[in-house]
Amino acid sequence: MKYYNAYDKLQDSISRSGSMLCVGLDSDISKLPVGFEKSINGLLEFNKSIIKATSQVAAAYKINFAFYEQYGSDGFDLLKNTFEIIPENIFTIADAKRGDIGNTSLAYARSVFDFFEADSVTINPYMGFDSIEPFLEYKNKFVFLLALTSNKGSYDFQRLDVAGRPLYQHIVEKTLKNYSNKNIGFVVGATHPDELAALRRVAEDSCFLIPGVGAQGADVDAVTTANNKKLALINVSRAIIYPETQNSYKTFEDLVQDAAVSYWEKMRL
Amino acid sequence: MKYYNAYDKLQDSISRSGSMLCVGLDSDISKLPVGFEKSINGLLEFNKSIIKATSQVAAAYKINFAFYEQYGSDGFDLLKNTFEIIPENIFTIADAKRGDIGNTSLAYARSVFDFFEADSVTINPYMGFDSIEPFLEYKNKFVFLLALTSNKGSYDFQRLDVAGRPLYQHIVEKTLKNYSNKNIGFVVGATHPDELAALRRVAEDSCFLIPGVGAQGADVDAVTTANNKKLALINVSRAIIYPETQNSYKTFEDLVQDAAVSYWEKMRL
Repeated sequence: MKYYNAYDKLQDSISRSGSMLCVGLDSDISKLPVGFEKSINGLLEFNKSIIKATSQVAAAYKINFAFYEQYGSDGFDLLKNTFEIIPENIFTIADAKRGDIGNTSLAYARSVFDFFEADSVTINPYMGFDSIEPFLEYKNKFVFLLALTSNKGSYDFQRLDVAGRPLYQHIVEKTLKNYSNKNIGFVVGATHPDELAALRRVAEDSCFLIPGVGAQGADVDAVTTANNKKLALINVSRAIIYPETQNSYKTFEDLVQDAAVSYWEKMRL
Repeated sequence: MKYYNAYDKLQDSISRSGSMLCVGLDSDISKLPVGFEKSINGLLEFNKSIIKATSQVAAAYKINFAFYEQYGSDGFDLLKNTFEIIPENIFTIADAKRGDIGNTSLAYARSVFDFFEADSVTINPYMGFDSIEPFLEYKNKFVFLLALTSNKGSYDFQRLDVAGRPLYQHIVEKTLKNYSNKNIGFVVGATHPDELAALRRVAEDSCFLIPGVGAQGADVDAVTTANNKKLALINVSRAIIYPETQNSYKTFEDLVQDAAVSYWEKMRL
């Protein structure tokens, strides 16, 4: 089934999977488990295995462009192939953190939406609304603006006080004031559950993309409580795609599936 | 000559060319002039012509990744080929506006520095210092952090008041306080000459990458006055690579060279 609008696909994908689980494909040759060729082809086989093991429970796949771009043009081919092997009813996120002046953002939008055919993209809002608008012009697509990210560096600038509120809150409020567009969501790190709960009161109906669970150490229960059952995707990358394989007679795909199912259960609707 | 450090290459490249002129390769199939095939190969031939026509006067080339990424993997091949045809003593800027959490920024750094072998990259600082550090780990390379960009959207967030100073100034000050690294510069739009002059007082010795002259309408003389003869690259893209060709018997390369020389004269050291 082809979806006209990514927002509808997002909602259906979450309903069908029954949870907010987003699986992040941060695929890296240096971390490939035994049994996969240490090559671009090996990475594609790895991605196929991950998708096969998780497609019953994943509401979305987040493809982290950096991990592919490090291999240059072959990596860009792999990115394209990876988007192609994702089942077409599962929501996809081009995690590319793009954003530039208008005519340049338009070229980035063409890349992620026309070439890769991603359903959504992550955008860095620092350059302002005219850097975001070329992405919004794709009215059947979805954009996630960075608000409060999951890393330690989120304390450097994102929380600076602007007229009594942190900068990231200002970005969310001004965006919601400027656009009634339901196809705009926000990235809010799972590592900040209190701030996530507060931001939910500002942006009740917006979809939040919540990274930071798993290798980054955020607590899933704190996140789901803070999110208060609102529309969200909670991303797990490394803790699912690189499961602990020692002392186990299970196959790699079974271990990935076990990890994904355990997160799925904690993130059920 | 192979340079060990991009900072030295930057200074030599500016000295040799005798000006601060940076030529932006925002190459786009839809804008190719008559005589070039409307294809990826045509774009490479176009870039060769631009470089041939400008290499005597250009202190640097800025390659805008978005324009290449819009063509997918073929575009990434073209990016690589474009870096390869730039004379090795001319400073190169991967204008990619990257930045993400640590392990992801490391993968982006590998892409721009190891795969493309760019001398420098533009970074969006919104995610904080741990998103910038993987790029700084390449101690022989150079990074430009976005401060005040040339577009209208720079009024949306970059100028927000933080403790009496605009956010962009806070970013510059905090960066200079954290790092004594001379391999960090800042992007400051030519469209804001007063703010550029003020920022020069905060970051006297930092290299500024100054976009916005030409199609974006900034006044070159106002910019060079504001910059006060400090280390800088002033970028011109469209006004050089897409010169007015009507009513002229000159070749495309001569027209490009004429445009580049006219900017070179205004940006002489």
